Amino acid sequence: MIMTAKAMKTVSEMVTTLPNSDLTSFLRKTQILVDSELDRYLPPESASPKQVHAAIRWSVFAGGKRFRPSLLLAVGETFGAPQQQLLSCACALEMIHTYSLIHDDLPSMDDDDLRRGRATCHIRFGEAAAILAGDALQTLAFQTVSEDQALSGKKRVQLIQEIARASGTPEGMVAGQAYDLEAESREVSAQELEQIHRLKTGALIIVAARCGALIADAREDELSVITGYAAQLGLLFQITDDLLDITATAETLGKTPGKDMRSAKATYPNFYGVDSAREFAGRVHQQARETLDQLDRPTERLHAIADYILNRPA
Amino acid sequence: MIMTAKAMKTVSEMVTTLPNSDLTSFLRKTQILVDSELDRYLPPESASPKQVHAAIRWSVFAGGKRFRPSLLLAVGETFGAPQQQLLSCACALEMIHTYSLIHDDLPSMDDDDLRRGRATCHIRFGEAAAILAGDALQTLAFQTVSEDQALSGKKRVQLIQEIARASGTPEGMVAGQAYDLEAESREVSAQELEQIHRLKTGALIIVAARCGALIADAREDELSVITGYAAQLGLLFQITDDLLDITATAETLGKTPGKDMRSAKATYPNFYGVDSAREFAGRVHQQARETLDQLDRPTERLHAIADYILNRPA
Repeated sequence: MIMTAKAMKTVSEMVTTLPNSDLTSFLRKTQILVDSELDRYLPPESASPKQVHAAIRWSVFAGGKRFRPSLLLAVGETFGAPQQQLLSCACALEMIHTYSLIHDDLPSMDDDDLRRGRATCHIRFGEAAAILAGDALQTLAFQTVSEDQALSGKKRVQLIQEIARASGTPEGMVAGQAYDLEAESREVSAQELEQIHRLKTGALIIVAARCGALIADAREDELSVITGYAAQLGLLFQITDDLLDITATAETLGKTPGKDMRSAKATYPNFYGVDSAREFAGRVHQQARETLDQLDRPTERLHAIADYILNRPA
Repeated sequence: MIMTAKAMKTVSEMVTTLPNSDLTSFLRKTQILVDSELDRYLPPESASPKQVHAAIRWSVFAGGKRFRPSLLLAVGETFGAPQQQLLSCACALEMIHTYSLIHDDLPSMDDDDLRRGRATCHIRFGEAAAILAGDALQTLAFQTVSEDQALSGKKRVQLIQEIARASGTPEGMVAGQAYDLEAESREVSAQELEQIHRLKTGALIIVAARCGALIADAREDELSVITGYAAQLGLLFQITDDLLDITATAETLGKTPGKDMRSAKATYPNFYGVDSAREFAGRVHQQARETLDQLDRPTERLHAIADYILNRPA
C-alpha cells in the first residue's frame, strides 16, 4: 500500500558501505557508537557523588547488547534519518532500560544477585546507591532528549511524550513490572501473560522503533506498520528470552538459569511448554516479516533483526 | 536596578480580589487547586495496575502542604504569568518531590515508617510497590510538562531541562540524597552540610521559583534575583525543618520526632546547636527579604512566604 520512498542520506548508507555489512557487524558498530555516546552523557566517576556515579556506570557498562538503541538506529536508517539525530534518543532508551534493570534486581523486587555475568548494582554498591542510580538514570534519560540541539523543540517534546508513556503507568513498563509482581502469587491466563510482557518488555521496544520513525518524519501509515512490527518483535524477544532462561547455562547466560522457572513466574515455557513456546516464536517471527513487507522502504536490516531475535545467542 | 514592570493579568489579581487575601489563604487556595489538578493527572485507583496507582495516590494525597507548587504559583504571579500556564509544572514538581519522599523512606534509605501522620508508602503497600510508585511518579512529572498544550514546545523543553537538572545528579536532588547517605557514617563540615541541603532540598525549591519566572518570561536579571531568593528560602526551609524535628511532638509533626538527631544525621541543630541554628535562620530570612527588594515587581507575597517559612508551623 505504501508506494513513496524518501530520499536516503542515512546511517544505512554509511554502514552498508563499510566492509562487513551483515547484521552482526551493524549491531557491533551501533554498540560501540552508543557506548561512546553514553559515556559522554553520563556523569564521570571522578565527579561527586562518586558512589552513585560509579553505580550508574557499573550497570550501564555491564556489557548490554544495546538492542533498543540498535533497533532505533535501524528504523531511523530505514526511513532516512541522519544518525546524528538518532543518538540522544537511543541513549535515553538505554538509560530507561538500565534503570529498570537496576530497580527490578532489588531484593524486594526480583532479588537477583547476578546480571550479565557480574554482581547486580545493589550487590556491588548497596541498595540505597542502587535505588538512587536508577532514579538518576531515569532523570538523565529525559534530560538527554530535552537537551539535544540536533532535534527541533517540537520533536524533543514529542519524543519525551512517547518515552514517558512507554515507561510509566498505566500503559508502560512500570505497569508491566507491577502486573508481573502481582502474577507471582497466583495463576495467570494466557491473556494476562501477554499483557505483562507487552508492557514490561514490549513497550520500550515499540517506543524505540517509533522514535526512530518519528525522528525520520515517517508518514502516519508507516509509523503504524513499524509499531506493529515492533510489537511482534517485542513478543518474539520475550518468548526467546524465556526459552534461553531454561536452555542456557549460567556461563552463557550471565545470570542464574532456570530462576524464572523455579519462582513460578509468568513465562511462555511455563505456560505452554518448551516445544509449543518454540512454535509460537516461529509464528510471531513470520508475522513480523510479513508486517515489514507492507513497507516500500529498504527493510533488509529490519528483517535481519527479526531473524536475529528468533535465533539469538544468549 | 530593575525598573520595568510588566502588565499584570495574573493569579495574583484573581486571588487578591478574593475575601481573605493573606498568605495562609493563598496557600490554602493553591493547595486545593494543585490537589485538584494532581487528581486529574494521576492514574485513577480504579485503573489497573491498581496497587501501584493506589500507592501513588496514598503518597501524593498524604496531606502535603504543596510548598513547591505554591512558590511556583507565587513567583509566576509576581512576574505576570497566567495561572493556567503554571499548573502543569507546579504539579510536576510535587510529583518529583513525592517520588523522592517515597524512595527516601525505604528501609535501605532513611527507613521511615511514618510520614505526615500515617504509614509511609512501603509500610502500607510493600517495598516493591513503593519503588514502582516512585519510579512512575518521576516519569509522570516529565510526561505532564511535555503534554501541556498551554505552553509552547520551546517552553516545555526549557522547563523539562530545568526540572531534570534540579532533580538528578551531579547538580540536583539525587546527588543531595547521595551526599546525605554518605554523611551518615562520618563527621561532616559546615560546608558539606550546606552542600547536602542545597542539593537535597534546595534544588527543587530553586527550580520551582525559576520555573514560575521562566513561564512568565521574566528577564534574565530578574531570573537571577529570584534564583538567589529561592536559594535563601531553601536554606531557611531546611534549617527550620531541622529545628522543628527537634522541638515538635510526634503529633504535630506527623513523623517520629528527634529521629534525625538520634541517627546522627547532618542537620543544622546537630552542627551548630539549637540557639545558633535559630539565629542562622533569622539571618538567612533577612537576606531573602533584601534580595527581593532588588525587584521592581509586586513582591509582597514572596516576602510573606519568607516570613511564613521562618515562623512556620509543623
